[in-house]
Amino acid sequence: MSDTVHAPTVHRADVTWDPTKARSALLAMFMAAVQSADPLKVLAAHLPPRPPGRCVVVGCGKSAAVMAAAVEAAWPDVAMAGLVVTRYGHAVPTRQIEVMESAHPVPDANSEISARRMLEMVRGLGPNDLVLALISGGGSALMSLPGPGLTLADKQAVNRALLLSGATIHEINAVRKHLSAIKGGRLAQAAAPAHVVTLAISDVPGDDPSVIASGPTLPDVSTIADVQNILKHYDIPLSSQVKRYLQTAPETPKPGDFATDYRLIATPMMALKAAADTAASLGLTSLVLGELEGESRDLGIVMAGMARSVRTHGLPIAPPAVLLSGGETTVTIGQGGGGKGGRNMEFALSLAVALQGLHGVWAVAGDSDGIDGFGDAAGAFIDGTTLARAQAAGYDPVAVLHQHDSFPVFDALGDLLRTGPTLTNVNALRAVIIG
Amino acid sequence: MSDTVHAPTVHRADVTWDPTKARSALLAMFMAAVQSADPLKVLAAHLPPRPPGRCVVVGCGKSAAVMAAAVEAAWPDVAMAGLVVTRYGHAVPTRQIEVMESAHPVPDANSEISARRMLEMVRGLGPNDLVLALISGGGSALMSLPGPGLTLADKQAVNRALLLSGATIHEINAVRKHLSAIKGGRLAQAAAPAHVVTLAISDVPGDDPSVIASGPTLPDVSTIADVQNILKHYDIPLSSQVKRYLQTAPETPKPGDFATDYRLIATPMMALKAAADTAASLGLTSLVLGELEGESRDLGIVMAGMARSVRTHGLPIAPPAVLLSGGETTVTIGQGGGGKGGRNMEFALSLAVALQGLHGVWAVAGDSDGIDGFGDAAGAFIDGTTLARAQAAGYDPVAVLHQHDSFPVFDALGDLLRTGPTLTNVNALRAVIIG
Repeated sequence: MSDTVHAPTVHRADVTWDPTKARSALLAMFMAAVQSADPLKVLAAHLPPRPPGRCVVVGCGKSAAVMAAAVEAAWPDVAMAGLVVTRYGHAVPTRQIEVMESAHPVPDANSEISARRMLEMVRGLGPNDLVLALISGGGSALMSLPGPGLTLADKQAVNRALLLSGATIHEINAVRKHLSAIKGGRLAQAAAPAHVVTLAISDVPGDDPSVIASGPTLPDVSTIADVQNILKHYDIPLSSQVKRYLQTAPETPKPGDFATDYRLIATPMMALKAAADTAASLGLTSLVLGELEGESRDLGIVMAGMARSVRTHGLPIAPPAVLLSGGETTVTIGQGGGGKGGRNMEFALSLAVALQGLHGVWAVAGDSDGIDGFGDAAGAFIDGTTLARAQAAGYDPVAVLHQHDSFPVFDALGDLLRTGPTLTNVNALRAVIIG
Repeated sequence: MSDTVHAPTVHRADVTWDPTKARSALLAMFMAAVQSADPLKVLAAHLPPRPPGRCVVVGCGKSAAVMAAAVEAAWPDVAMAGLVVTRYGHAVPTRQIEVMESAHPVPDANSEISARRMLEMVRGLGPNDLVLALISGGGSALMSLPGPGLTLADKQAVNRALLLSGATIHEINAVRKHLSAIKGGRLAQAAAPAHVVTLAISDVPGDDPSVIASGPTLPDVSTIADVQNILKHYDIPLSSQVKRYLQTAPETPKPGDFATDYRLIATPMMALKAAADTAASLGLTSLVLGELEGESRDLGIVMAGMARSVRTHGLPIAPPAVLLSGGETTVTIGQGGGGKGGRNMEFALSLAVALQGLHGVWAVAGDSDGIDGFGDAAGAFIDGTTLARAQAAGYDPVAVLHQHDSFPVFDALGDLLRTGPTLTNVNALRAVIIG
């Protein structure tokens, strides 16, 4: 008897990779991405020439302290003064530059104190002096100073209303900058006529410098008139203080008001390219899909579709290959409440469920900062055996996804990715090997 | 004053495509995908040699009638008998093959009548006779016959419990086949010793023939023992009828019991390749991402990330390019209830929102069957102006997404994709041009 299935021509390459090789390659790609964003490794190459005059270092963000330490390490013989503010727990030892810690995502008193002190430090410098501004994600909350006559509560009320209004991130930022005494270029404005060089780590898709920490050293193209139109268009309720402030507020500095020297030292795309270089050295064709957002669980389902297509049809690329993506996904907690898990672990578990045990696929998803929401892990590894092993360990992976409780599963399976805190952040790296 | 932003090397190609050219290319790609699955165009090439004996045509699915008409058109001089069953409203005129209509997704009396009649028609044939089985999506409900002693309600109760249990599609299908008197190869078994040739249109990811319409003409690798294990493992409640049936049920035919000749005449991947061929003829590099699932809205956000990466970094491909994907996404209706919209329109609107007016991106998303859930449209077009035009027309696109009410927006904008019912189905086609 003849059995024939006249299927379309498909690519059914044998799986040429084994689990040990795959796990090691995933870890190597993830670490290459993290190291591409490590200030101690990459900052020095972006420094300007040493200044003839004074050197003042300011900065804000989750990487501010380690960036300051990297400046000191690169210029051991340069006398410098300065202050940077980072998140509680993110300080590292420095010799000359002071490190403060403040709160994220909601600013606290230290956010204001550090902002005031930085503005004071950069005032009165001359044209031979250099201000190094070290900017990274989270800086907007960590260094926060409301405009004259405004309180933090005023700013936050407007911000919350805007986030719910459907306003774009650019519209929200235009308002934020105008309600601040340090953002939207006001820090650089205070430093004139000193030479200001910004060294930045981007954690925003597209790396728009005016969005990273709300651009304290960049001229602002938005105007008070824009801000008033935005607030009116989205019908944002305003306190009498905010109304009064907007009538008399000083305009943000505009392009041309001062020279801008802005250097991106680490970005999500640089991290993806570092992972791709590592993939190439390991004999894997890589496809960099970009910085992806959306719900973690759904991205897991989408990525499973692509992995299946690679395995079955050799499209979008032929195996052995790796699908690389960055960006930050979302976990929406439903009525059931949230368990223990992070955006990357939830992506990984969803991918494992959607792959339904597909042979020859291995993946890692982790946050480059080393902390995936909950606990002490950066993310997790999965493969075609994850589902069966989770079930054998007594877990119902579909229910776990519903409860956003992926950490205990990966902990039980020994499949957590652990790097420790990396003190940098270029969002997630997801790597899916189809071997 | 010098303004320098030391950004990483990025690909910022000028937009070389214009809106008219893009819209026309999107339509051409969509229609190429649909035509690749049109039985009247593609079925004839897959027919076996004309039989020396009798020719009996049976079949089920949303395309069954038009596939029957295509057989008659290809073999105008062959005498044939037969019956196919399609969905209400999907009949087309035929000369020799009878067409019945039944209900989808929940079977009705006609589903049973047609199944019984087809089993009768193929019994008693000889080795020189040919049975053509025309199989397409929806066939499982449209041609449905419970095993001896079972009712439709028995089958449905087990099916519902399995769908909620976390069982895999393969496990669910194993059970379905064993509870049926026609699926899992029993139709082909009844036709022996006639030569059975199956012509199939796939609407399932991966095109597994045993999944399309639950494989009425394919031997079944699953056993009653498997079924009992699955029902036990997922703790599925069983009626006394089902319990009794499983103790005495006849095993499904196994590989080797009869010869199998199964021909996929149209698949989602063939449709994607047809669209890619059209893209190439128009000067667009295409990237076929595969058959993608997940929530429509989240796939829109994911696809926006990829389009942005193509525009900004030339990754995963350099523009002018098109990202092609198929598969069937989901729309989960929340507490707010559902409005008027389909899975493809919702994807398109979400993509437009996530693109935030990005210049030089144009997209279409539509269902190959010509009906995207609601109304008379297959899907919708979007571009960088969609968001602003929707707002100018008085819509709040974010609220519209929340209400799953995208049809009226695209209707008002004149951006609906209208093909009329195509009588075939290889799921969605999504094309995103980055010009």
